[in-house]
Amino acid sequence: MLLSETIDKIEPLNDAAIMEAQKRLDSLTKPLGSLGRLEDIVKQLAGISGNVIPKADKKVVVIMCADNGVVDEGVAQSTRSVTAAVTRNFTRGITGINVLTKHAGAEILVVDIGVYEDIECEGVLNKKIRKGTWNIAKGPAMTRKEAVKAIETGIEIVQDLKGKGVNILGTGEMGIGNTTTSSAVASVLTSADIDIMVGRGAGLSTEGLLKKINVVKKAIDINKPDPEDAIDVLSKVGGFDIAGLTGCFLGAAACRIPILIDGFISATAALAAIKIEPKTRDYILPSHGSAEPGMAKVMEAIGMEPYLNLRMRLGEGTGTAIAFHIIDAAIAAYTQMGTFEDASIEQYKPLK
Amino acid sequence: MLLSETIDKIEPLNDAAIMEAQKRLDSLTKPLGSLGRLEDIVKQLAGISGNVIPKADKKVVVIMCADNGVVDEGVAQSTRSVTAAVTRNFTRGITGINVLTKHAGAEILVVDIGVYEDIECEGVLNKKIRKGTWNIAKGPAMTRKEAVKAIETGIEIVQDLKGKGVNILGTGEMGIGNTTTSSAVASVLTSADIDIMVGRGAGLSTEGLLKKINVVKKAIDINKPDPEDAIDVLSKVGGFDIAGLTGCFLGAAACRIPILIDGFISATAALAAIKIEPKTRDYILPSHGSAEPGMAKVMEAIGMEPYLNLRMRLGEGTGTAIAFHIIDAAIAAYTQMGTFEDASIEQYKPLK
Repeated sequence: MLLSETIDKIEPLNDAAIMEAQKRLDSLTKPLGSLGRLEDIVKQLAGISGNVIPKADKKVVVIMCADNGVVDEGVAQSTRSVTAAVTRNFTRGITGINVLTKHAGAEILVVDIGVYEDIECEGVLNKKIRKGTWNIAKGPAMTRKEAVKAIETGIEIVQDLKGKGVNILGTGEMGIGNTTTSSAVASVLTSADIDIMVGRGAGLSTEGLLKKINVVKKAIDINKPDPEDAIDVLSKVGGFDIAGLTGCFLGAAACRIPILIDGFISATAALAAIKIEPKTRDYILPSHGSAEPGMAKVMEAIGMEPYLNLRMRLGEGTGTAIAFHIIDAAIAAYTQMGTFEDASIEQYKPLK
Repeated sequence: MLLSETIDKIEPLNDAAIMEAQKRLDSLTKPLGSLGRLEDIVKQLAGISGNVIPKADKKVVVIMCADNGVVDEGVAQSTRSVTAAVTRNFTRGITGINVLTKHAGAEILVVDIGVYEDIECEGVLNKKIRKGTWNIAKGPAMTRKEAVKAIETGIEIVQDLKGKGVNILGTGEMGIGNTTTSSAVASVLTSADIDIMVGRGAGLSTEGLLKKINVVKKAIDINKPDPEDAIDVLSKVGGFDIAGLTGCFLGAAACRIPILIDGFISATAALAAIKIEPKTRDYILPSHGSAEPGMAKVMEAIGMEPYLNLRMRLGEGTGTAIAFHIIDAAIAAYTQMGTFEDASIEQYKPLK
């Protein structure tokens, strides 16, 4: 119900605002188009918000935390307990995303959408759907109803943040085993070869990598997810974190808030959201190119190129936190640069 | 004299500091190496400064401004007067680099190293070598003595900034016609085909582009610069801005200050500096990948990959200003993240 309402609410960008923003950009004292993708960012934000002078000063990174039954197959370098430990540490200010959001003037919202352990920790929103998914190598990760509930959880969270005045979102996750589930979902949704969709996650050995590839193959063989039905794919071979982030992307589009992709898991959720409602794409911005090999394939599938090439593979939303600086720089240039009139120089013009 | 003294002073990075920084990085609560190039940045800065906790809080972008006689050939979309107008506007706070350095907490140092017009404007350092270079399509841009003087000007400026406590530098330029001279210098120094080294600069038409390619060919044919002698190349087909920036790179290496490449012109100067003294490379960091096609070739020649993919082509040092945020983020993560001990979780370990 909430999901279908949300999908119905997603509209195209505001073209009039984009055209006004273009006009303003072209009046600034620089060669036409020379700010490159900074100009694209400004136009996209104008089209999303409908404001010619868009704001992105209230930033939140939503971090979906969940466990994955597939870790029983030995596909991750860490034990399941690390998911809970890192989830708790997000509230202690010592993780990568804590430091990088602080540095970017952003906040985090930590969501337990399916961590195995009880978290009960101030600063973690309890939206637990279940204590981790089932093992996708043996059957579906979750029921379809649970998948919809996870997506709707993401939507509700974004609606709530919109109500609090948040005007730009980042996406993050924590969940041991979630590069395995992302590889499975992304392989099905892009029809790409599984071998190139599976990577070393947080640092697998080559032996571990081969095992992981086989687990993904087995999960897809057993579950037979329908590539034309992203919710089916998420429920059969995904995870609560990916489904929750899919909801964040859909919710952001419906609420007209720009939302940034982080790494492979987040990009996979963006892809699922775009499959569910293609107009969602216009509300999404990239951030960095993760070191995971499947990332490039997913970004190609959604037609986006990362702004940052930093070979990070930490997750947590850390790429979005760094990309916030680029968004801010784009808005600063757009709003603070002088015009040709101010500059008293002729407009740069192409030679005949 | 100053040039050869400076070259002699350039030493390798401090390996002990790099190793200590690596140790600290590996104690942070994240999978080993998962901060990717942010970790490389921290190690490089530690190796440059010799401090395990390096600082980059006093930032300056040096902007070398100069005119190029080659604009007489019609290779640029703007007239020479734009160089002087923009140089003056740097002091008025309305240009792209003004806004982006302010946003990054950096300052600019505007240097008239050879603008055609008299600038006489507070806030512009007068180091004019001559009122623009000669036309490289008809003969050398400058004498060898002038090239050395321009390089030494860059060195002196960096020495002065070091004395003022500056601990990280960006490089920028303003000079109508300077993508033409950079294409010529870069073609000779990389032995790359001229056709792929010449681009549309600030926005040339296709006809203009073909003319520009021919001018670069003519300049190289007539002047016969020696590819083994970067100073010869700079003097014959370069410009005062490129030579001045070459001095900045050499000076930064001698003074042990990290220095960032901006776009194609700045990258060409970095390449010249590395040709003069290869150890200079260790003190240089990339920033963005310019839209100029020669940029990729030059970066390949010096073995560097941009952090940012923003398709900017404004020059002025704007790419370095945005990259400063990445440097700051790297240092923030390095100095403020908790350790495994703080986090009370097992260290992430590879599976057998």
